[in-house]
Amino acid sequence: MDESCVMDVRVYGVPSMLLSNDLQGAVAVVIDALRMTTVAAFAVRNGCAGILAVSEVEDARQEAARHGALLGGERGAMRIEGFDFANSPLEYTHDAVAGRRIVVTTTNGTRAIAACGDAERVLLGAFVNAKAVAHACMGAERLALVCAGTNGRFSLEDALAAGAIVARLRERGAHMRLCDMALACERMYIAARGDLHAALSDTAHYGRLVSLSLARDLHECLMEDTIDAVPERGTDGFFA
Amino acid sequence: MDESCVMDVRVYGVPSMLLSNDLQGAVAVVIDALRMTTVAAFAVRNGCAGILAVSEVEDARQEAARHGALLGGERGAMRIEGFDFANSPLEYTHDAVAGRRIVVTTTNGTRAIAACGDAERVLLGAFVNAKAVAHACMGAERLALVCAGTNGRFSLEDALAAGAIVARLRERGAHMRLCDMALACERMYIAARGDLHAALSDTAHYGRLVSLSLARDLHECLMEDTIDAVPERGTDGFFA
Repeated sequence: MDESCVMDVRVYGVPSMLLSNDLQGAVAVVIDALRMTTVAAFAVRNGCAGILAVSEVEDARQEAARHGALLGGERGAMRIEGFDFANSPLEYTHDAVAGRRIVVTTTNGTRAIAACGDAERVLLGAFVNAKAVAHACMGAERLALVCAGTNGRFSLEDALAAGAIVARLRERGAHMRLCDMALACERMYIAARGDLHAALSDTAHYGRLVSLSLARDLHECLMEDTIDAVPERGTDGFFA
Repeated sequence: MDESCVMDVRVYGVPSMLLSNDLQGAVAVVIDALRMTTVAAFAVRNGCAGILAVSEVEDARQEAARHGALLGGERGAMRIEGFDFANSPLEYTHDAVAGRRIVVTTTNGTRAIAACGDAERVLLGAFVNAKAVAHACMGAERLALVCAGTNGRFSLEDALAAGAIVARLRERGAHMRLCDMALACERMYIAARGDLHAALSDTAHYGRLVSLSLARDLHECLMEDTIDAVPERGTDGFFA
């Protein structure tokens, strides 16, 4: 077996688990399955020209003005005043986004993207594009799946989406060396894959979105491999 | 259902996942199943008068001299020159430890204990005393299971031991609110409980100890509920 072909795969349950230099020379995949990276996959699939993630609402407004971009995102899971979109994938239709740039600001996904500044490539992954992400990562020597979590805490949906990507890599025949978290995520995903809703029904963030009447979003976000697009960070910081 | 009886249970996959104020008023259980907290359970069960964990080898020597204590611990999983014990539970026999204090320094467990300074109580947990730990935690409003990990990284054996403690609490009828990591750990433990060795055979730290001919230690450390002792931090910093 050719050791040079081994892919070193690490999963980070929250961005704060990254140690210094972990991302140098690595391909990073940011995962915020409920809902930011799912939204990005929808938008790019529907022809959006690029998505920029920024931390603060006021910065988002300024960047959007500068780039002639639309505005999307949430605070407390809800739409921000004056924004074109909230954080629901179903809003980012072809009619609404084709050919347009979008500046988004969300609570967790944006922070996780910022934590991946050192990586050689940064992709956005979720359940909806797990297979496409695995395809895009084939050949990488070092892969870091960085779960956004929720308010700094581990969130099971992101870990299961990381596990889905590891499982897709294995199905493609990738020769991997998994850290313990990657191993745990793949096992949990395999146990859950028949019914992701059941696996998540007792979790904090899923329950919160149900309570906010966002069940349709959950339905879209927990579909697997429905989208081929893999948003990737360009030199201008926009994901396309 | 009396909400005042709900136990808020959080698991931290590594100490760096603790957010500020998380431990105030909480009972913390430090878990370094391979091997430090297992060693501590053996030592206390065998009559040790108290265990102090310190970060540096030189500090350990000074503290031991000051307290007339024995010295234990490891660097790179191996015995430290001039120390009475390495980090193998089988060394800490009644004959060797009864009535004596011990100062230990280990790579991961000691750091995790240091991270729990704010907690109201700090206990040491492992597979060997999971049931006894659960018993000692009944009635706590907030329980934090802090996995030591390995060199700052998530280590599956500690997560499974945390899951074992959550499972024992459930078996005792505790009414719990679990964070996502606690939920994940309990599920992984339930899937693994029939054969912990198989569940860990692909993990980094387990493999390392096998390669160092420490299979006997692994055998001892992965026994469940063989020890009733729960080392708890005293006002002098010693666990007894």
